[in-house]
Formats: sequence, structure tokens, C-alpha cells
Amino acid sequence: MNFRSDNTAPAAPEIIAALTSVNESAAPAYGEDQWSKRLNETFSDVFERDVRVFTVASGTAANAICVASLTPPWGAVLCHREAHIECDECGAAEFYSGGAKLVLIDGDAAKLTPATLEEGIARNERGIHSVMPSAISVSQTTERGAVYKPDELAALGKIAKRAGLGLHMDGARFGNAVAALGCKPADITWRAGVDLLSFGATKNGAIAAEAIVCFDPARAEEIGRRRKRSGHLFSKGRFVAAQLLAYLDNDLWLKLARQSNAMAARLGEAALPFLSHPVESNQLFIKPGPEALAKLRAAGAEFYDWGNGQSGEARLVVSWNQSEADINAMIKALSALR
Amino acid sequence: MNFRSDNTAPAAPEIIAALTSVNESAAPAYGEDQWSKRLNETFSDVFERDVRVFTVASGTAANAICVASLTPPWGAVLCHREAHIECDECGAAEFYSGGAKLVLIDGDAAKLTPATLEEGIARNERGIHSVMPSAISVSQTTERGAVYKPDELAALGKIAKRAGLGLHMDGARFGNAVAALGCKPADITWRAGVDLLSFGATKNGAIAAEAIVCFDPARAEEIGRRRKRSGHLFSKGRFVAAQLLAYLDNDLWLKLARQSNAMAARLGEAALPFLSHPVESNQLFIKPGPEALAKLRAAGAEFYDWGNGQSGEARLVVSWNQSEADINAMIKALSALR
Amino acid sequence: MNFRSDNTAPAAPEIIAALTSVNESAAPAYGEDQWSKRLNETFSDVFERDVRVFTVASGTAANAICVASLTPPWGAVLCHREAHIECDECGAAEFYSGGAKLVLIDGDAAKLTPATLEEGIARNERGIHSVMPSAISVSQTTERGAVYKPDELAALGKIAKRAGLGLHMDGARFGNAVAALGCKPADITWRAGVDLLSFGATKNGAIAAEAIVCFDPARAEEIGRRRKRSGHLFSKGRFVAAQLLAYLDNDLWLKLARQSNAMAARLGEAALPFLSHPVESNQLFIKPGPEALAKLRAAGAEFYDWGNGQSGEARLVVSWNQSEADINAMIKALSALR
Amino acid sequence: MNFRSDNTAPAAPEIIAALTSVNESAAPAYGEDQWSKRLNETFSDVFERDVRVFTVASGTAANAICVASLTPPWGAVLCHREAHIECDECGAAEFYSGGAKLVLIDGDAAKLTPATLEEGIARNERGIHSVMPSAISVSQTTERGAVYKPDELAALGKIAKRAGLGLHMDGARFGNAVAALGCKPADITWRAGVDLLSFGATKNGAIAAEAIVCFDPARAEEIGRRRKRSGHLFSKGRFVAAQLLAYLDNDLWLKLARQSNAMAARLGEAALPFLSHPVESNQLFIKPGPEALAKLRAAGAEFYDWGNGQSGEARLVVSWNQSEADINAMIKALSALR
Repeated sequence: MNFRSDNTAPAAPEIIAALTSVNESAAPAYGEDQWSKRLNETFSDVFERDVRVFTVASGTAANAICVASLTPPWGAVLCHREAHIECDECGAAEFYSGGAKLVLIDGDAAKLTPATLEEGIARNERGIHSVMPSAISVSQTTERGAVYKPDELAALGKIAKRAGLGLHMDGARFGNAVAALGCKPADITWRAGVDLLSFGATKNGAIAAEAIVCFDPARAEEIGRRRKRSGHLFSKGRFVAAQLLAYLDNDLWLKLARQSNAMAARLGEAALPFLSHPVESNQLFIKPGPEALAKLRAAGAEFYDWGNGQSGEARLVVSWNQSEADINAMIKALSALR
Repeated sequence: MNFRSDNTAPAAPEIIAALTSVNESAAPAYGEDQWSKRLNETFSDVFERDVRVFTVASGTAANAICVASLTPPWGAVLCHREAHIECDECGAAEFYSGGAKLVLIDGDAAKLTPATLEEGIARNERGIHSVMPSAISVSQTTERGAVYKPDELAALGKIAKRAGLGLHMDGARFGNAVAALGCKPADITWRAGVDLLSFGATKNGAIAAEAIVCFDPARAEEIGRRRKRSGHLFSKGRFVAAQLLAYLDNDLWLKLARQSNAMAARLGEAALPFLSHPVESNQLFIKPGPEALAKLRAAGAEFYDWGNGQSGEARLVVSWNQSEADINAMIKALSALR
Repeated sequence: MNFRSDNTAPAAPEIIAALTSVNESAAPAYGEDQWSKRLNETFSDVFERDVRVFTVASGTAANAICVASLTPPWGAVLCHREAHIECDECGAAEFYSGGAKLVLIDGDAAKLTPATLEEGIARNERGIHSVMPSAISVSQTTERGAVYKPDELAALGKIAKRAGLGLHMDGARFGNAVAALGCKPADITWRAGVDLLSFGATKNGAIAAEAIVCFDPARAEEIGRRRKRSGHLFSKGRFVAAQLLAYLDNDLWLKLARQSNAMAARLGEAALPFLSHPVESNQLFIKPGPEALAKLRAAGAEFYDWGNGQSGEARLVVSWNQSEADINAMIKALSALR
Repeated sequence: MNFRSDNTAPAAPEIIAALTSVNESAAPAYGEDQWSKRLNETFSDVFERDVRVFTVASGTAANAICVASLTPPWGAVLCHREAHIECDECGAAEFYSGGAKLVLIDGDAAKLTPATLEEGIARNERGIHSVMPSAISVSQTTERGAVYKPDELAALGKIAKRAGLGLHMDGARFGNAVAALGCKPADITWRAGVDLLSFGATKNGAIAAEAIVCFDPARAEEIGRRRKRSGHLFSKGRFVAAQLLAYLDNDLWLKLARQSNAMAARLGEAALPFLSHPVESNQLFIKPGPEALAKLRAAGAEFYDWGNGQSGEARLVVSWNQSEADINAMIKALSALR
């Protein structure tokens, strides 16, 4: 009953197979191989427009490069107080951007709303003595497992454009969002005004494969330079390209995401009285109190406390390969708390 | 007849098998898995002392983190004019270090000597108006395929210590150096005064697996922070750990390196009249003139020109999996030039 | 009736005279002149211990260099939400530190308390995925004109030491604090645990003269390098040294600060019903509402709105040279609001 | 007989007088005062076109901000091996630019030529693995006291434009260059293709007054941000503005520069057999050998050795206020060597 994180899951068999399949004879290095070269086209199909794709080693790298490409060093990046770029990346956004400032916005379910975003922009416009609002970063799904609907994102995108701010999406669990919404990937990205997407595959079945999807051709050159300079251009690029191609092939990514979302929904029903938020994707947040959490652990469940440890709140993340037995056991343990 | 780079080679079957072998059930993320945890011990065995190991995605990342850990932003890093960190990493060392300066030293075979190093240090000691000599970076094997002998390195290490400078080794082809020298890994690293080693596996049979080997426990905490902050801490760390464990297991790394060294030596005999340098590892530099290079290409050989394109010089890199047929064909083509 | 800022005031005649007095014949450049060389000794007398002094061109430079010297790039600097380094320096702390993060603490009168500081430290200790609490920055006087008493600072200093954090003081109005407290400069700096002080003279009668006062000899070398590298080492250093020597000579600084504090106290009595905070130094914050502020302006008063412009709050800053007539006129205008 | 540097000279009386003249009553802070506001217009007159002017505290700050505005962090800045930005600013250009690389070009008299510049550009165009040539920095006068003629600069400017590179001029001794050439300031700046000029006044009679002159309106916003962020926006801006206005008023700057140039020319005649370069401005380089230098020092002359101390070469800098007696004594001492 390991619900610590989808990062703890193994890779899907299709991903492993893909590595083997490209491991024959020599291939050009640094992204000039045939598989890497197919990435732009394949992602362009998925996103229904020409995009440029840059693979990197981690979600942190994808996020930091994207943020740095959208803000000058003296800029401010507006994001939620619980955003991964703020809380969990050891200041990568500040490092890559040359010292931009993250400006934090509060709100339920780790979401920005038009009102809180407008307020955050207004609060930071103080001329040359202050950092300059330059970009917005949203997470889809959010750090609380919530999902922005296309029109919610479009509303944020409209504000971004009006204010002249770039819009980045941290899509570490982008597949879970698309699966949950049943929408087109385009609907929650460029059609809503997103300029750069961190497209995550690692949590949802890959080994280590993240991609920066660039919807703005004018930024591509810079992103390529930033990637190389930070050591995220792989010499044997075929192996990360192969993962991503397999991930997108036959909608594997959506199958895996639907699976974890569905299992999470089942857990959500069992945990209904304790939910901090409605379950929208593959993460649940429950707040049954410290004693109840101790009981879950006693029953064999593994998960992270959320908040400061005394809050009695916990996060449960369902992975693509979570077993039926795991889920059933957890449902039983949760039901025992009611 | 692809002699472009060992980066173009596939991964060794043992490496691929290792990925599969760790791909079962959940494992803790971010280096807390059992395989990642074995890295310190395994490398400590190889290096005959306690070391701390930090995996990263690329040699550029390893080099840049090491250099940044050895110099303040206002420092100077002495390296050869042809060093990879100077020529081929898009300024990664400057990025990671916050703007340190690389001070370039000339010399045959891309090697530093005690004399040139002392001169470089002396030339840059000008008080507060100048950057402060802080570190030295050497490549083993060098960018010209040369190999530093243990006593050569010890002489550089002595200068480094006396001048209070850190010593970094770019070991992108470290296996080829150890194989060529038949020495202990310790003899050309910490015993000679090396503080930090970029230990490369990718070029010599891995998929994407590089390790920072830290011989100075006091620097380990900082290196861990720098790695995380730059996006090089893998969430599913087991997959890179598995590659490195397989690489070291049963001296696979030395077997592969001996193989490419030996093949290069055979090519070197055939190319004797054209060699820019004696062949010491798996790289050859030949200078038969532009017309001769055109003939080699006409015979099916692929390689990079070296220098400015009109120099008539070329680099040939032999990979771990270079076929006997390739080598024989190349020997034939080279012999035809004589 | 200009109460916009003490930055709008002219320089004291003693400061101007000092410039003339050092303007004869040649003098060594870059701080090797006789006046610059006297700074360490003079400040050591004032602070009752050996200190190292580094002059810079602005308070922003002093603050940013201090902060950068107390935190690694991956560190967190705890400060009040209204701190000058957060709100008014265009991200200088982030620039100089290589991207450290400012962690914001709320509290009345722009002050940190032991409780809020402890909470801020605890909230940010999350291991390698998060930035690492490394330093604390307090402003004396605060951005709300409040003054930390020696024991209040000592309590913060104790927490800093226990947690292994450096302690910086932004003393842009340090003279006003010392004058208000009637204490020794040492009592609110190194005796309380302050490591680095931005000692401001510009607002209180100088032209452009700020000094970093370093209480920790081990940091001096680094500060000198950071100053040079950022372009804050003056070639004709005698002119800034002369200002500082004149500023300290015969307690000029305290005379000027007492004068502005006393005038502010008089204003404070007149503004009693509208005060946001008790008046402790040379800044007043009043909140009589938008209409009352309009009346003050109609009466000829100049000042900045505080907050978002609709708050009906304003800041009044009294300068060292504020005329009796100005003060009396303002008292009359304030009294008319009651 | 102090010929160490023009940095050792006092300020001209007109500059001191200017400080006094602006020191009355309150004036808006941060460059909003009437004197600061006149800078754009005054410099626009001098340069015969609309320019934007940004005052800073030092030549290092001016240079570093200019360079950073012309190159991305992954860029290369081409400059002479002896350039001040390379040798004497403790890596300021690297700091401000976020780690750009200075690419060094050799050549007589510390000058770039079209041939060496083209070669430098070509040598560094190696695609994404290398830093990207982005800017050129020239010094006028050069670090060897040489002066670029308008057509020499125009030739470099043409190369810059063709290659898409920005062109910066380090004009720490710009006045000496204009005085030597008898040309219009425009002829050796924007008419020749210069984008940004570090206009120095400190060495030639000011206290501390340097200005970034921006010929490209599109860069002005960024320069203002970089200045603020680095702590070089003065709160009491009137005092630096006053220096610059007095410096330009009635061609004071050219009078002072002509004076030091003329005195240097006299010294040059006396030193003719020992000159390393013809004397073109207010700096002389002589190479009479170590013993001769010792004799000069024995005669009371102060100056810096040039090169490594054993070279027997020295630099003599003539200041605006160098006395007739000084010059005559030095001429006598030099003549005694012949």
C-alpha cells in the first residue's frame, strides 16, 4: 500500500521495450538521431499545431528553463504558494533565471483564479524599485490534485496576455489532467494562452523523460541554449526520445493516466468524509486527524503527511501500476475510519 | 565506418539488462532506493576510500557542478585551451559558478604541465582587481586522447595544494584512461590530489549515466544542493544507479574501455605517418591533409574535422562496440593513403 | 512641507566641507588613501571592537552584498514582508546572491519577533528539495519607523546562532535608531548577534555614503571581492571616506538623527489620533482616510500614500534639515483634521 | 612625480563647486531631480542625437551593465586580451551578464582590428555546444593609451552589425580620445556603430561620476532595471548629475583632457627611445629596462610596472592637474636615461 508518490512507480513495459528497440548500431548524438528528430512532429500532432520539443532530465529542469525563458532576472513570476517551483525545487527557478523572484498567490486547491492573479499583478507593479511582473506559472494538475478546466485556463491566459506576461504550465502530471478532462491537449495549453509547457512523463510510466513543449517559435532558440548550458542536452538522445515516442504512441500516456485517475476516484469514495478537496486526478488529500493517519499506517499504508506533521492531513498518490489489491486494501483501511 | 564519437554508440547489453532488473514494484524516489544507496559503497570500493557519489544526467552537468563547487563566483579556473568545459559546454561552468572565469593554458596534447600551470597561476595573481585563481580542471583522457600518468597528475596536484586551488578532473573517458594506464583509479585521482571527479559512463557503454565522485566529504552537502537545484536529481534514481552498478560490476567498464583502446591502437599503427599525437586511448588525431581526408570519406569513413576545417586534421573516435569489420575497413582506407 | 523621504534632503554642510578638505594633490586610488585607511579604526572606535568597513554607493548595494555573503545561492533569507530588500531593491539580493530566496514573515510595525522568526525557520526546513534557511535580515529602524530594542535584537540573534543562520541588519536609518534608543551602537549590532551591518549615512545628511560594517573578520575578504566585482569599489575612495569620517566626527550623525527624531515626535503628537504605529524615529505613518490626506495635500504637504492608494494611509518622513516652519505648518494641518 | 594613475588626481574645482550649488533645499530622489533630468538633454546635445543617460558609481559598473545588456548569459563578448573588463574588474562582466564568456583577442596597442575581430568571431561560431558571439567591447582610449580613429571604429562597427553583435565602448578616458582626435563625440560612437558607451568622468576631474550613454532607445528600459538592481541608482542623484553637468559645461572635459594629453606628449618626446607605443593620449608606456626604471624611481618618480615586473616596462599616466614642475622633473629624469 505505497501511496507516497507516483515517482516511486516502475516504468511501463512499453517504455523499457522502447529503449531496447533503439539500441542498435550507431546513431548521431545530441538529438540528431532519427527518434529525436521525430519528436517535434509527434508532439505537433498531439498538440494540433507546430511545436518545438526539448527533452530534459527532470521536471525541475523543464520548469526552471521555461520560467527563465519567460522572465528577465529582474522579473517576478506569479505562482501559487504551494507550487512545485516554489516549494520543491531548491530554488531552481531562481538559479536558471539569474535571480527572478517568485511572487506567491494564495488560494484553494493550489489554484490561481482570475481574481487572485489580477490582485497579485497589481500588488507588484511599483515601478523600477520593484521586480517587474513578467510571467505566470500554473500547475496542471495542481499540487493539490485539482484540475484547471479549459475555460479557467483561458481566463488566466487572457489576463496574462493583457498584462504582457508569459504563461508557463508545470505539467508534471499533464497526462492525468488530460485524462480527467477528456479534452484535447491543445485546449488546456496554447488555446488557453500557455506559452511553454513542462510535459511530464516520468511520474506516469517513463524512466526519466520530460519535455519542454514550446508553443512560441521565437523562444525555441533560447530554450535550446539554456538546455545545453545547464547540462540537459543528452549525448545519447535517442533513449529519452524513445521513451517519449512510446509514451505518446497509441495513447499509452492517457491509458496509464486514466488508470491511476480511476483508482484514485475509487479511493476517494471510500475517503469521502475526510477529503480536503474533491478528487479530480490521481492525488487525494485527506484530513482524518493524526490518530486516523496512525491507524492507516498501522494497516500497512505508506504516504506523506501534508502540512506541518501535526495537521492530521495526508497525501495519497495513486500510480499507473497500483495494484487492485493495493487499492482494495486501502479502501478497507479508509472505510474502517468512518 | 562511423568514427564520429563514442557518443554515437549504443548501450552495452549489460546496461540495458540492468534497467529491466530494477523495474519491479515501487522504490523510494530521489536516490533513496536500494540501488542508489549502494553507489557510495560500490564507488568507495573502486576508489579504495570513502567517497560520495552524485549521479547526474550529463558530463556537462558533472563538470559544471564540480567546477562551481571549487570556485567562488569571483574565481578563476585554470584549464587547457581545448578543455571541454571551455569549448563544448555552452558556458555551463560560468552558469553554475555564477560567473567564474576560465583561464586558458596552452600546451601539447591538451595537457597541462607543471610549468604551464605555474605560469598560469602566477599570471593571474593580481589582487582584488582581478579574478582569484581558485581551481584547476584537467581532462583524463584529454581532448586530444592523451593520458596523464599518475606522477604527472601528482605534480599538478602538488601545485594545486600549494597554491590553495581545488583540482577537478573531467573523466568523460575516465575508463579509457584507467584501462590505458593499467593503474588503480585511486592513483590518478585522490592519491594525486584530485578533489572532484566527473566519472563518465555514457560514452563507454551506458545510456545516460555520469557520476560526480567526491573525495572531499566537506563538499558533499553543497554538491547535493547544487545537483538538486539544477534539476539533475532524478526522481526515479534507481535507473541511473542501475546503469552505474552494472558498469562497474565485474569490471565491465574496463573491459569496454580496453576494447576501444585496443582497436584505436590498431588504427594508430595504420595511421602512423599522419598522427598528430601518439595514440594513447580511444581517440586518434590524424593530419593527412584535406585531400586525404576526402579520400577517407569517399571510402565510407565518417569523422569530424578538427580545427577550422581547412587544417586537414581529423579526429577518429573508436567506440566500445566498434566492429572488427569497421576497423579493418578503416585500416585499409588509411593504408591506402600512405 | 516636503515629507516624502529623507532621501530628498540636501547634504549637511560638514559633509560638503569634508569633500573640499580632501581634494588636494594626488592620493592613492581604490581605498589606499589616508582617509579610507582611517575608516576601519574610526568605525572600530564607534562600535567598541575591531570591525572592517567597506564603503559602497548605495544602501541597496550594502544590503545585497551583505545578504549574498550570508547565504549560498540555494539559501533562504528570512525577512519581513515589508523589508526594503524585498520591496524596493528590484531584486538586488537575488542578483548578488546568485538566486537565493527571500522568505517573508508577517508582523506589526515591520518587525520580526522570536515567535514569527522561529515559525519562519521551521516552515522552511524541508531538506534538499527546498531552499535552506541561511540568513536573517532585519531593518533598524524598520520600514514602519519602529525601533528594535537591544534585548529584542538579542533574542533574534540567539535564534539565529542556534539555527546556524547569519544575521544582517539593514541600517539605512541606523543613526535614527541609535539616537532614539540612546544606546551604544554595539548594543544593537554585534552584542546582539549581528554579523553584518549596512550602515547608512546618505539619508541622514551625506551625499552618497553607505558602509558595510563587518563584525566577522572571516567574511571580510569575500565582501571586498563582492564589492569590487559589483563596481562598488570607488577609484577616488577618499571622497566617500571623507563623508563618513565627517559624519561620525563629533557625533554629527547622532545630532542630525536626534533632530529629525525630535521633529517627528512633535508631528506625532499632532497626529496622535491617526497614527498607525507609535512614533519611534523619524518616520510617521498616519491613517486618517483618503479625504483627510487630500486636505493635507491641499494645505501644501507632500508625502507618499502607503499601501495601495485607497488605504487612506500615508508615510511622513522627517529629514535632518526639516525647517521649524515646515514642522509647524504640518502640525497646524494635522491639527485641523482632528 | 606621481604618474601612477589619473585615478589618484583630485577633482577639478568646477566639480566641487557644482556639488555645493545643488545642495539647497529638498529635491526629488532617484533621478527625478531637475539636474538629473537635464542629463538626457545635455548629453544629447554633446552627441548630436537623442540619447538616454544612466549615471553609475564606477567605470566597472558602467562596463558591466553595458556588456550584460548586449549579451545573453550564453553569449561571448569579444575584447582585447588587455581590456579592462578582462583584467581589472574582478569578473564584473561575468557577474552582471549571468556568466557570459569574454573571448580574448590579441593585438598591438590593445586594439582590435577588422582582421583580428573577424578571426575571433569565426573561431567562436560552433553552434549550440559553444557560447554564442554576441557583443564586442572596445576601449577608447585603449589600455595602452592608443586611440581608435573614426574610420577604424566604423570598420569594427560594420563587422559588428553584419555579424549581429552589439558594440560597447569602454570610455573611461573618452575625453582624452575626443581631445586627441579633435573629432565630434558622435564620430567615434554611434556614427561608427557603437550601441552603448561607458562615459567616464572620474579619471578626468570628477569625484565619482560615470555615465552609460545609450544610443539604442530599445535598450534603455533594461539598463535602468539593471542599474537599480545592482545598487547603482543613487537616491540623491543630483550630486552625480551636478558633476556631469559641470564636466560638460563649457567643454571643461575637453580642456582637462587636452591638458593631460599635451603634458603626456611632452613626456613622450623626452622618452622617445623607450616608448613601447607612440603617445596618443595621456598614457605612456616606456620600456627602458629594470635598471632605468629603478633610476626613475630613485629620482622620485612613482608609476606602475607593466607586465610581470621583470619586463622593465612601465606605465606613466598624466593627470589633468599634473603640475608643470612634475612634468619638467620627469622630463629631466627621462632625459638622464638616454
